[in-house]
Amino acid sequence: MCQLLGMNCNTPTDIVFSFSGFATRSTEHGDGFGIAFYEGRGVRLFVDHQAARVSPVADLIKHYPIKSRHAIAHIRKATQGVVALENCHPFMRELWGRHWVFAHNGNLVDYHPRLHGSFQPVGDTDSERAFCWLMQELAKSHASMPPVAELTLTLKELVPQIARHGTFNFMLSQGDALWTHCATHLHYLVRRHPFGLAQLQDQDMALNFAEHTEPGDRVAVIATQPLTTNEPWVTMQPGELLAFVGGEPIGVSAVG
Amino acid sequence: MCQLLGMNCNTPTDIVFSFSGFATRSTEHGDGFGIAFYEGRGVRLFVDHQAARVSPVADLIKHYPIKSRHAIAHIRKATQGVVALENCHPFMRELWGRHWVFAHNGNLVDYHPRLHGSFQPVGDTDSERAFCWLMQELAKSHASMPPVAELTLTLKELVPQIARHGTFNFMLSQGDALWTHCATHLHYLVRRHPFGLAQLQDQDMALNFAEHTEPGDRVAVIATQPLTTNEPWVTMQPGELLAFVGGEPIGVSAVG
Repeated sequence: MCQLLGMNCNTPTDIVFSFSGFATRSTEHGDGFGIAFYEGRGVRLFVDHQAARVSPVADLIKHYPIKSRHAIAHIRKATQGVVALENCHPFMRELWGRHWVFAHNGNLVDYHPRLHGSFQPVGDTDSERAFCWLMQELAKSHASMPPVAELTLTLKELVPQIARHGTFNFMLSQGDALWTHCATHLHYLVRRHPFGLAQLQDQDMALNFAEHTEPGDRVAVIATQPLTTNEPWVTMQPGELLAFVGGEPIGVSAVG
Repeated sequence: MCQLLGMNCNTPTDIVFSFSGFATRSTEHGDGFGIAFYEGRGVRLFVDHQAARVSPVADLIKHYPIKSRHAIAHIRKATQGVVALENCHPFMRELWGRHWVFAHNGNLVDYHPRLHGSFQPVGDTDSERAFCWLMQELAKSHASMPPVAELTLTLKELVPQIARHGTFNFMLSQGDALWTHCATHLHYLVRRHPFGLAQLQDQDMALNFAEHTEPGDRVAVIATQPLTTNEPWVTMQPGELLAFVGGEPIGVSAVG
């Protein structure tokens, strides 16, 4: 199984700390990795067929603090599709003049949706097929970009049609919101004032966020498994879809 | 004006040497840079709003030999559009299940084509509008991916319709061929057996390709201005469109 990491903030924030812990997990997930950062409407997408633990590209990300309001990362353990660059998540497509980024953890069995629109897979994974189908159906549902709340309603109709084919944990963003869907394992945490010390689970590294933040900052971190040992991670429920905006899930009270 | 660099090879080759010389030119072209590498159907796309001369991302590329058969790089001097990540070339879109990559040097005046299809600009440059229009018209001209020769014919019909709006030097690839169009300045060079010493124009750096190649290797390098001082660069003519495949322009005898 792959692992997912997402970040959504109300102010551009770097993901160096969380990514450092996350990248350590690639010992068991060594078939490539990828990470996408939004900067306004622009996206930086880094993918590598090497494990995040050893990749020079991952090394750059651990040392170059790219400040972003939405980031999605993925480390891959191949279940379907060969180990090749075109099968590395996140995937990206343009719709309504915005870049959409998608990463999936899980396995969709015999999933071959009818892709009759403008979105065709480049690689040969179930994940990219699911993304192309989502983009196709979103394009059919709205003539131009609707507000986040409306997109969330459309996704709530579409996602179960994919999820019944297998395990469908995913993260999706278009630069305004970050949607996460839990099928089996997904956890999130909202960091806000008063900030404190966070201790990484995967390596001996701690960071006092009080020294790196302003009182108004709010950062949501979403991951397959909790990344820190001393913070109140919330377990998402199977079938739950959340839209994160400005560093917290919409319509759900955030944890302090 | 921006500058373009392209590479097309018959065997995966790294672009470290050419990019090192090219990146030096960002002193005068300091509004961001980008480079795309094909690995099979997969693409690595690196963009940065910082000049290639100082960017940590450019530094990675100068030291991480990514082997590719098609690469397109661009350093930007903003003429239209703000300095922002979404305006950095190369741009990328998917069509017929392939990633297409495009970079432009020049300026299209009052160019606002009718974009009624599935390709909408994310940023606000004339260049991305031209790319979206090209993708839209290619999608209308062919139901699925045609052979390179047929695509070249279609491009020869489409490109003049954009070129009459201003200066339209560009590079385009979908991972099988690399097309270059010259409006004002574009030069190319084919390196093949017997390989020799190449001396960079922009910095005191030389490389003996005989030590790094096999006799069957063939590499075409295309750039706004010649990158080396002692090799037989060919000047492209205004209005000329070439398709490079396997390290040489199709239908044109390569230079030794």
